[in-house]
Amino acid sequence: VDQGDSALVSRLLEPLHAADIADLLEQIGATERRELLALWSGEIDGDVLSELDETIREEVIESLPPEVVAEAVRDLDTDDVVDILEDLEAPAQGKILDALELVDRVAVEQAMSFPEGSAGRLMQREVVVAPEHWTVGDAIDFLREATALPDQFYHVILVDPRMKPLGYITLGRLLSARRDVRLKDITEDSFRTVVATEEEEEVAYIFNQYHLISCPVVDENDRLVGVITIDDAMNVLDEEHEEDMLLLAGVGEEASVFDGPIATVRQRLPWLVVNLFTASLSAFVISRFEATIAALVALAAVMPIVASTGGIAGTQSLAVAVRALATRDLTSSNARRVVLREVTAGAINGVVLAVILGLVGTLVLGDPWMGLVLALAMITNQIVAAFGGVMVPLTLERFGLDPALASGTFVTTLTDVMGYLAFLGLATMVLL
Amino acid sequence: VDQGDSALVSRLLEPLHAADIADLLEQIGATERRELLALWSGEIDGDVLSELDETIREEVIESLPPEVVAEAVRDLDTDDVVDILEDLEAPAQGKILDALELVDRVAVEQAMSFPEGSAGRLMQREVVVAPEHWTVGDAIDFLREATALPDQFYHVILVDPRMKPLGYITLGRLLSARRDVRLKDITEDSFRTVVATEEEEEVAYIFNQYHLISCPVVDENDRLVGVITIDDAMNVLDEEHEEDMLLLAGVGEEASVFDGPIATVRQRLPWLVVNLFTASLSAFVISRFEATIAALVALAAVMPIVASTGGIAGTQSLAVAVRALATRDLTSSNARRVVLREVTAGAINGVVLAVILGLVGTLVLGDPWMGLVLALAMITNQIVAAFGGVMVPLTLERFGLDPALASGTFVTTLTDVMGYLAFLGLATMVLL
Repeated sequence: VDQGDSALVSRLLEPLHAADIADLLEQIGATERRELLALWSGEIDGDVLSELDETIREEVIESLPPEVVAEAVRDLDTDDVVDILEDLEAPAQGKILDALELVDRVAVEQAMSFPEGSAGRLMQREVVVAPEHWTVGDAIDFLREATALPDQFYHVILVDPRMKPLGYITLGRLLSARRDVRLKDITEDSFRTVVATEEEEEVAYIFNQYHLISCPVVDENDRLVGVITIDDAMNVLDEEHEEDMLLLAGVGEEASVFDGPIATVRQRLPWLVVNLFTASLSAFVISRFEATIAALVALAAVMPIVASTGGIAGTQSLAVAVRALATRDLTSSNARRVVLREVTAGAINGVVLAVILGLVGTLVLGDPWMGLVLALAMITNQIVAAFGGVMVPLTLERFGLDPALASGTFVTTLTDVMGYLAFLGLATMVLL
Repeated sequence: VDQGDSALVSRLLEPLHAADIADLLEQIGATERRELLALWSGEIDGDVLSELDETIREEVIESLPPEVVAEAVRDLDTDDVVDILEDLEAPAQGKILDALELVDRVAVEQAMSFPEGSAGRLMQREVVVAPEHWTVGDAIDFLREATALPDQFYHVILVDPRMKPLGYITLGRLLSARRDVRLKDITEDSFRTVVATEEEEEVAYIFNQYHLISCPVVDENDRLVGVITIDDAMNVLDEEHEEDMLLLAGVGEEASVFDGPIATVRQRLPWLVVNLFTASLSAFVISRFEATIAALVALAAVMPIVASTGGIAGTQSLAVAVRALATRDLTSSNARRVVLREVTAGAINGVVLAVILGLVGTLVLGDPWMGLVLALAMITNQIVAAFGGVMVPLTLERFGLDPALASGTFVTTLTDVMGYLAFLGLATMVLL
């Protein structure tokens, strides 16, 4: 299709949802993308830009004339404009800001003044408020007359004369109440506000915990400055999950499948180098037992079994712990109980695996003492793995770090070192 | 507090949000929980039951008299009742169903007739509909008169006489339009429906992709049967993430930090046993090179470095790929490009790590040939890791399996086997 017919391209793309057009742009190669945009760029929509993955968005915005971007961005709610601007370089930001209407520009600049990753960056400035003394009828008449309502809104926020939010009323409640009912008598119990400097992670937690649909944002003087809606919170939740999963695997949190090889190397190499050194710890442990291995070379072949099964067990208990910390199911008040349960489960797993490995080892290697050494090393390492899998993220959390922060590398280093140490140490005692 | 004063307990719990009471019940130990419930059970709220983790909920419901549970459940929307019932045994389900009002009971039983994990189980039956010929005024008058509106609703759904949904109108639009405007002229563009048998995973994807707030559910004849709201979709999204993270680590998907040791063992032992056998593959590979190791015992000490660094690299590329498959950023149309990029990044990482390991190995072991063997084995294994990390989940997905399904075990087995094979094979050729 991209061989020249600009009208046809527009006709084909026109009925699609912005999110689907963004997906299409993401899926095709960089050259095709440039050709497609050259044919279609005049009509690009702000919503499409919003939906693009950051890496691709940067590429697309660079390839478009700044007027086109500014025009496209003009119809978006302020939170979406902020989302697009925050990834751009300062000169590109300036050009787009200049093209906005003054009132939007001020709103965007104000939002950008809050730290990255804060509630202030997530909120939209467009809010629907009513004075506290209004009745249902006043509010309905006001809404019917209002000219510029937000694209999406779910509540009317009740404020005092100082713009302090006092409560909110769902539109459903507003519609079903009699006209003479006072707004302050039908506010929702679930009402709560967040401060603009609050971290977005905390905001997502509040939405998820209390099933909120929207939440007013206040400044440090408790004055209403904006509102965060659930779609933004859902987005943050999604990003938090991504971050946990990638950090756990030792990948930079911004990683995306659309990154080029160099960006990919930059995200991953640091942890690989760290692992190179932690793996040398295992090598050092093994090298202390070279005499034992020289006496019985078969040990070298079976020793990774204990280490590797320990690594899997450690990863299992780590994944459960990191998830539980993220959902706040694991807290300081039940940490001791959870650790105890993990270690008990680890011991049971260890005994079962030890029986299997001990029997198979005895049969294959023809030496019951070898089977015994394998079995005892397995039990030890399974218990260490279960313990380490919970303690590493708990410790990181206690020091104010992200509990997922490459804990995978720490835990497998622990289980490797302990696996080799237990196995070769026992072998030296029992077999020589 | 739990030493006897029932009134005091009620007074303390009363102002708390249901989600916070549920958290409190989850955090305390089993004995304290039983004591607390004995003091407070009479007033337990359906919302609190809804918020509890499944494991704890089962325990709590068993400890309560069925009348209390039935009473508590009565005020919930049907989707929440279904959510509670689906985890219970048949006799307990029956008792609660018997206690419901007939109309609710029919609705719940109908929802339970849809397969577990389908849109039919997620939806609530309470919907607000309007005939297609109504005006804004008709709808507002209807809402003002209606006695039983759902707890939360965000749209009025327009239906034809056969109850086929034709579009929906946001309440905000309804409030701001003139009374004589026809509803069908102010419907939303984003309108779409899902079929009740659709998988909940697909539903969550649609909400996230198109930023929906609610979505009507239809039966196979395209008749409206219910509506799914964004809080349910957010919940599913959250569970999908949990599932991905746990499956990737080789843990049963239902795992929770509140499970007892036996449940924990049951979720984890199967994959540990699988790993015991896959790890034996590495042992077999190493055993083929016993003569090489006997000739140069130092090999046994350094060989895990190559295998372990490969394991981390494989896990990194796996995490990115599994996440990209979940968000549908990685599809058959860009798979080839992504694999190529991964392998390129893997090769670059391999070269950098090879230089470091080669130099350090040469210095520490005093043998440049050993350094060369380490370096070459590292490059090989990094490329294999990058390739395996993407191909394993892509292959699982192609066969209709969950791409996260213990792919961690597969990938680390691959990198272990290749790491030992490349290192010991090269060592046999170069050093002996």
